Amino acid sequence: MLKSLKMGVLPTIHCRQRSYAEYIKEVIDETIMEKLEIQPFLSASKAFCIADMGCSVGPNTFYSVQNILDAVEKKFISEGFAPDQIPQFQVFFNDLPFNDFNTLFKSLHPEKRYFSAGVPGSFHGRLFPDSSLHFVHSSYSLQWLSEVPPEVLDKDSPAWNQGRIHYTNAPEVVVEAFAAQFAKDLGMFLDAREKELVEGSMMVLILPSSPDGIPFSDVPTGVLFNHLGSCLVDLAKEGLVSEALVDSFNIPMYSVTPREMRQLVERNGCFSIERMELADCRTDPDNTVTGYSIAMHFRAGLEGVIKRHFGAEIINELFERFLERMDDVIPSLLSSNAEGSQLTVILKRKCYH
Amino acid sequence: MLKSLKMGVLPTIHCRQRSYAEYIKEVIDETIMEKLEIQPFLSASKAFCIADMGCSVGPNTFYSVQNILDAVEKKFISEGFAPDQIPQFQVFFNDLPFNDFNTLFKSLHPEKRYFSAGVPGSFHGRLFPDSSLHFVHSSYSLQWLSEVPPEVLDKDSPAWNQGRIHYTNAPEVVVEAFAAQFAKDLGMFLDAREKELVEGSMMVLILPSSPDGIPFSDVPTGVLFNHLGSCLVDLAKEGLVSEALVDSFNIPMYSVTPREMRQLVERNGCFSIERMELADCRTDPDNTVTGYSIAMHFRAGLEGVIKRHFGAEIINELFERFLERMDDVIPSLLSSNAEGSQLTVILKRKCYH
Repeated sequence: MLKSLKMGVLPTIHCRQRSYAEYIKEVIDETIMEKLEIQPFLSASKAFCIADMGCSVGPNTFYSVQNILDAVEKKFISEGFAPDQIPQFQVFFNDLPFNDFNTLFKSLHPEKRYFSAGVPGSFHGRLFPDSSLHFVHSSYSLQWLSEVPPEVLDKDSPAWNQGRIHYTNAPEVVVEAFAAQFAKDLGMFLDAREKELVEGSMMVLILPSSPDGIPFSDVPTGVLFNHLGSCLVDLAKEGLVSEALVDSFNIPMYSVTPREMRQLVERNGCFSIERMELADCRTDPDNTVTGYSIAMHFRAGLEGVIKRHFGAEIINELFERFLERMDDVIPSLLSSNAEGSQLTVILKRKCYH
Repeated sequence: MLKSLKMGVLPTIHCRQRSYAEYIKEVIDETIMEKLEIQPFLSASKAFCIADMGCSVGPNTFYSVQNILDAVEKKFISEGFAPDQIPQFQVFFNDLPFNDFNTLFKSLHPEKRYFSAGVPGSFHGRLFPDSSLHFVHSSYSLQWLSEVPPEVLDKDSPAWNQGRIHYTNAPEVVVEAFAAQFAKDLGMFLDAREKELVEGSMMVLILPSSPDGIPFSDVPTGVLFNHLGSCLVDLAKEGLVSEALVDSFNIPMYSVTPREMRQLVERNGCFSIERMELADCRTDPDNTVTGYSIAMHFRAGLEGVIKRHFGAEIINELFERFLERMDDVIPSLLSSNAEGSQLTVILKRKCYH
């Protein structure tokens, strides 16, 4: 069974035999059943308030929120509460103001068992009143940086990241610039949530990760970022896109290591780490993953960022090349380190009373 | 000065000399200063929660909410609270799920002094957890019915409203069907808010009204509905739109009288009427209002409803005719009863403890 983090021993969970969704559902179920304290909730408010940070437009957010709600109900019942003593739920769906909330709202299930609200704004700042949330969830959002670190765009800086689109395969000074930006962003996220979460309440953070001590260029996403970068450089060489535009493009994404995550949580100081584990959730490349499916998945994740920088015209050409040359990349992908590419962190807001 | 409702004496406020917005701001300021009880709020929660029901896409909703917030702050200060004891504010913007929340969210002021959330859903049902709101505002939304009363669409019913698009100039049985639908809808609205509002908290409702005892065909909106209906009937006669489509079209809008409003609030039983007054807010027709401005104003308000029923193609033709024939209507408009066409109601959630 899954184990909690103990004294730096970080288990890597292999979830090839079951879906990633099932794995996360199990983590959330166990967390709520074992760790959630009902008492601070009951004294504070009448509704149990859940926020999903970086919810996008669904349907994943609905699935996550329903998992949390089901688990909290089960917890109340296991503690001897009658069904009519189970609290009402209010769910806040958060994302940036340019997220398509209209689509999200139209997709809400009419029979849902919670009151819902959309909260537009950056989760790097305050979004909710003091002590108003009882459970926070964020899946695959915290890796996005609030901005590209300014020094990697500065021609006069030693961290200028010319000819690359990420810190993959970049000099250490570039890696450090990305790491510092992530540290600043996560710091702001934790500072804001620290004030918004009721004492004793919990937060589940799921994000792409690199195992401690493995360079990002040796993990599958790093290999693919590298590949995408070389396709872009080729387009520039052929004059299909300006070289300056490629030089000024950096994917604002950081893949945290467990060690860094622990340091950042401890630096904030208001949360205890209740559980932290890496999961290895790649599926078998001989079986279901093809070059095409990888290219499509990658395109879905990065199309927005690329469009905003280069315009929409480049997208088809870029991903056609990306796909054409996938065969050259598959061997490095297979030999890359896919152990523990996803980090799940469960935090509890410390109590001071 | 404005007076509260006392024993059935309903003052009509003439606000030609100042804008309607100023009038409403004054009503809200006075209400909060004189009637808001701070004590029940303080014991219940840490943030002061405001909801605007039927907010549309702004900017009016931002203006209303800011008025409320300013007045509540002033009230706290007048009661001796220090600035750092004034609560945080959380504002919920509610409208139907097809409202353009994306536009609303992008228009939120970055420097606003409140946390904000959008709440999609019908205010005829529950939208918030029990006892979670401290102030509810709704302006020019409650007149919209949740549906056209079914009997006015039923050819076999004595209330079938053939050849008309509203209860204006219709037989009494049609008027009663609309009134019954409004009563049902407002009942559902009050039932829901009764549970969501903290005891002692307040609700400001602003909606178009007809003075007691005046038929709707004698108020300006009634005259204009009539005019629009005759334009539609003409289009049908000329074969530009099907007669059946005109027969099945009814504007789902009801203009409540003060007497009805009082009865409906009393039927619910959980709110006391703290203030109720009619305002006459037409501007001088000789001065600023032209046939063109009336037609445009009318088009802005009704275009959505007409499009959903007839399709978009008819709109230009319909409102061109509406405008062309405005001159014939201006005399009835000027002789119509514009005294008290807008009702402002201030309710307080009764306390039982």
